[in-house]
Amino acid sequence: MTVHRVHNFNPGPAALPLPVLEEVRESFLDFRGTGMSIVEISHRSKEFEAVLNEAIARIRRLLGLDARHHVIFVQGGASLQFAMVPLNLLPGGSSADYVNTGTWATNAIREARLLGKTVRVAASSEDREFTYIPAKIDLDPQAAYLHLTSNNTIRGTQWARFPETGAVPLVADMSSDILSRPIPASRFGLIYAGAQKNLGPAGVAVVIVREDLLGRAPETLPTMLRYTTYTAKNSLYNTPPCFAIYVVERVLAWLEETVGGLEAMAAINRRKAETIYAVIDASGGFYRGTAEPTSRSQMNVTFRLVDAAREARFLEEAARAGLVGLKGHRSVGGCRASLYNAVSPEAVETLASFMRDFAKNG
Amino acid sequence: MTVHRVHNFNPGPAALPLPVLEEVRESFLDFRGTGMSIVEISHRSKEFEAVLNEAIARIRRLLGLDARHHVIFVQGGASLQFAMVPLNLLPGGSSADYVNTGTWATNAIREARLLGKTVRVAASSEDREFTYIPAKIDLDPQAAYLHLTSNNTIRGTQWARFPETGAVPLVADMSSDILSRPIPASRFGLIYAGAQKNLGPAGVAVVIVREDLLGRAPETLPTMLRYTTYTAKNSLYNTPPCFAIYVVERVLAWLEETVGGLEAMAAINRRKAETIYAVIDASGGFYRGTAEPTSRSQMNVTFRLVDAAREARFLEEAARAGLVGLKGHRSVGGCRASLYNAVSPEAVETLASFMRDFAKNG
Repeated sequence: MTVHRVHNFNPGPAALPLPVLEEVRESFLDFRGTGMSIVEISHRSKEFEAVLNEAIARIRRLLGLDARHHVIFVQGGASLQFAMVPLNLLPGGSSADYVNTGTWATNAIREARLLGKTVRVAASSEDREFTYIPAKIDLDPQAAYLHLTSNNTIRGTQWARFPETGAVPLVADMSSDILSRPIPASRFGLIYAGAQKNLGPAGVAVVIVREDLLGRAPETLPTMLRYTTYTAKNSLYNTPPCFAIYVVERVLAWLEETVGGLEAMAAINRRKAETIYAVIDASGGFYRGTAEPTSRSQMNVTFRLVDAAREARFLEEAARAGLVGLKGHRSVGGCRASLYNAVSPEAVETLASFMRDFAKNG
Repeated sequence: MTVHRVHNFNPGPAALPLPVLEEVRESFLDFRGTGMSIVEISHRSKEFEAVLNEAIARIRRLLGLDARHHVIFVQGGASLQFAMVPLNLLPGGSSADYVNTGTWATNAIREARLLGKTVRVAASSEDREFTYIPAKIDLDPQAAYLHLTSNNTIRGTQWARFPETGAVPLVADMSSDILSRPIPASRFGLIYAGAQKNLGPAGVAVVIVREDLLGRAPETLPTMLRYTTYTAKNSLYNTPPCFAIYVVERVLAWLEETVGGLEAMAAINRRKAETIYAVIDASGGFYRGTAEPTSRSQMNVTFRLVDAAREARFLEEAARAGLVGLKGHRSVGGCRASLYNAVSPEAVETLASFMRDFAKNG
């Protein structure tokens, strides 16, 4: 029986690798000979601990982390990390620097301030509607950390290189581009990422935190908001989201073993993005990329049709052709093709071809 | 092909209804004609919103909630609720009453105090190792709320009837017996429950909160820890754990449509528990129930073998017979059969029969 499948360009939750989905389905009633589903086994069973430890080991290998970095799994998404980062890393009397590159960075800044924390905006691209990544950062050398959003899903921008911050720990929300390319991991004090773009299903976030930053948290933080609750118990203080972690581990296995690691993934992602940007740039103005070219994201290609009235028909015909999830974020409109790791080059070629045809006939 | 399945008596994550697991598997690659997996569709799609709204509607119908109660889905498990309840419902200058019936209640009390809240223990069964539910509560009529744990997984006790609290809102951690029986829902100000016992996979908690209690929260709470963040946006402020909510909805459908609602479920659960307690009580002292008879739980039957040295062999032979998850909590030892909603009467009969045979031959 053939299963009906579309090309999924959703911004998150997003496409996952088909072989992973097939494996999850196959083993769903009997997980590795236990006679139970992965959603029925104990989080303290040796089978689940193996899954958890393998997921952590794979993230360590893929990113080249050293022993100073902890890898933990936390619920609540990146939105909870907007609070946990300042609550854990920004004691009273100190200040943190944030780079504002759009909605998610703005939310991170707002959350820190809501909690009474002192936050400086060290750089911003708000002056031109967040269509670029700021080249200069007015870094406070005393800052508790510098926070940035490595990829901006709504405006389609991405940091091509990360700033040098010297002794100031670099903290990054990598929800939408984690493991899409190699990064200089040793320069990061903390990285967080909701799973539902490059890693797996919604319902878990990966946090990578450097040992020396763990001592800053006050004793009175809610237990579940303290990073040490997770680092001390290998993310098993309470019942973790076992299914989500399991699928993440399988996606990581696909990334290591089928794709071949982050260099290979980055090359594939670069080609995928170039394919769509090339269609946009060669369309004679029919399509218009919304991000400044040097700041373009390889994960989220944002564009408009110059004749905005045609956008609805573009989205409609694309959906009819099995190309879904191409609508831009409701706050900015337009179109967006999210090309996360699991979006196949074939899906991207199909989209490129559709876009060329639509420009010709539309 | 026959799938290998065992009888699962795990305390949580726990057994789920087989027809639900089969349906999840069948539709895993193509959710309701979308051409995407349930783990790949947008949380803002009409398909997912239908799942979410149906889950809420089913909880409302099953519990007979009225318009004053909100039903929301929150990540972080009951452990995060230990903090969210006092942070939202217990303003500075007021005090809350807690009943201490064991580990989870103790943790809830400890967390509230960690956050600097004033908590009175209005009743406790600590004097006899939490083997009973206190009959008398020294309720402070000015208390912000009375908190209790409706079922205690570790000691195998359960509230048979809930206390009358007058104007003091009743708050209950129902993680391990929610929807196992009808409850007088209108008397509760707030109910919370991690999903991974009676509701679905780990990774989501259901919170039912009465409208009039929402106004107590300070403005400076982290966004993701404020109940109004969820009530205002129908649990869609950020990406929710879509897969877990979807399975919860399917389990609720099974409970409504196959089982026939909470009266029917309660009758089945009562018979299941009576079956095992009857074996214990008729064993001539071979097995010994650890909870006082009037406080016995219908969800977690805790017992010892009078000859404790035989317990390891009991657990081993049970596992060999396909009866798994019978080990008591590591903090108390012994044995425990968790008989949540999805544990079938047939599984319970098989266990009863095994226990009788083991007592005869063991």
